[in-house]
Amino acid sequence: MQRWRLLLEYDGGPFVGWQRQANGISIQGLLEEAIVRLSGEERTVVGAARTDAGVHALGQVAHVDLEKEMSPERLAAGLNAHLRPYPVVVLEARRVGPDFHARFSAVRKSYLYRILARRAPPALERGRVWHVPPDLDAERMHDAAQALVGRHDFTSFRAAECQAKSPIKTLDLLHVRRVGALVEVRAVARSFLHHQVRTIVGTLVQVGLGKEDVGWPARVLAARDRRLAGPTAPACGLFLERIDYSTEEL
Amino acid sequence: MQRWRLLLEYDGGPFVGWQRQANGISIQGLLEEAIVRLSGEERTVVGAARTDAGVHALGQVAHVDLEKEMSPERLAAGLNAHLRPYPVVVLEARRVGPDFHARFSAVRKSYLYRILARRAPPALERGRVWHVPPDLDAERMHDAAQALVGRHDFTSFRAAECQAKSPIKTLDLLHVRRVGALVEVRAVARSFLHHQVRTIVGTLVQVGLGKEDVGWPARVLAARDRRLAGPTAPACGLFLERIDYSTEEL
Repeated sequence: MQRWRLLLEYDGGPFVGWQRQANGISIQGLLEEAIVRLSGEERTVVGAARTDAGVHALGQVAHVDLEKEMSPERLAAGLNAHLRPYPVVVLEARRVGPDFHARFSAVRKSYLYRILARRAPPALERGRVWHVPPDLDAERMHDAAQALVGRHDFTSFRAAECQAKSPIKTLDLLHVRRVGALVEVRAVARSFLHHQVRTIVGTLVQVGLGKEDVGWPARVLAARDRRLAGPTAPACGLFLERIDYSTEEL
Repeated sequence: MQRWRLLLEYDGGPFVGWQRQANGISIQGLLEEAIVRLSGEERTVVGAARTDAGVHALGQVAHVDLEKEMSPERLAAGLNAHLRPYPVVVLEARRVGPDFHARFSAVRKSYLYRILARRAPPALERGRVWHVPPDLDAERMHDAAQALVGRHDFTSFRAAECQAKSPIKTLDLLHVRRVGALVEVRAVARSFLHHQVRTIVGTLVQVGLGKEDVGWPARVLAARDRRLAGPTAPACGLFLERIDYSTEEL
């Protein structure tokens, strides 16, 4: 039995999310189906992050165990052939040891949130950005964001349905920058609470639009009350950018 | 009567191209329909470039004459409201003098061609890139491209159905660069022949993949024979990036 690490890119738009569900097509389900067709083996594919419906991935990581022997190139190409009708691709397949676990071995996750700040709605970036008015001030957002970096109780930025045992997380980086009409928010942490990035972005956008002052996100954080934070930003702007693992496990 | 200059963004994927045609939905046709609905006026919308089916625009320019008086913001927002189901948006509407002509007043057009050079097919960039093998050498392509810059007879890089009177054009810039798995080709000229950018890209890709030597595009150019050039690159990778006008006409 060989454990494989898969690097994945997908457009989350048409899916119910990463996780297999009864009510629609999931990325996990598509991969498991492609694996059955390729190898005849019924396997569970474990993803590093359980992205929500509509959330995209530039670099999701998953692992799966296979009996059938084949080269990494053959595995990736074979899965891609079966996935072809769907916007899900295997960028790379790599042999890993039996202790590698896509979720538990991850030491860092990086998310990118894309906002289109202009009057006209998106044409080319439809479904890949959150569309907000042009006067979004990215510098104000960046300044406000810095109070959230570090180890905190993120109860205020956590979805009601979040299953994490503790609301305490360490946010390593939270950067906001504007490139033309595009405002990019990058968030890096070992792990995140459910909807944490989207609630943080929704809160920072209130500051960027001048509806709240720069000190407001810090006060929302301190209050530990979800009702005080901004609205959850839409899923379509969120991209799981990359997952890092400690080198000894690769 | 007021002449308006419209700056447009669109995803060319679902359309038969810029120009009104009997066999499908065109961007020009959609705009003319939106104008009737907004103002009650039946007008011809003149575009700077007649982009082909599947070709995208980041900054197409068009002009149209309207009797109905309204603010630039109201015109752009009104057209966008009627265009909403389609991936076509007006980025900006601007009043111009009666001598402004979207096509004839243009002094420079800039096209961007996007190539995804990797093993895995695109998931997020599907329909927005040409997918080629990973070993595409962008530096070799750039070196080969420089022989095409300047004033030349581009007969070898012209579609059979091209209606231009003369095959002589001046290419001001032809740059190739790699950013990760993405290879970008940028071409700037006062005007282009039909399929000129796509045929140039198709030819340069043959060099980038090592199927032809760096001097080959120069020899194809000198031969003035379309049969010698590479295949026409697919429409989905091409973006009309911007149109420049001399300042006195704005």
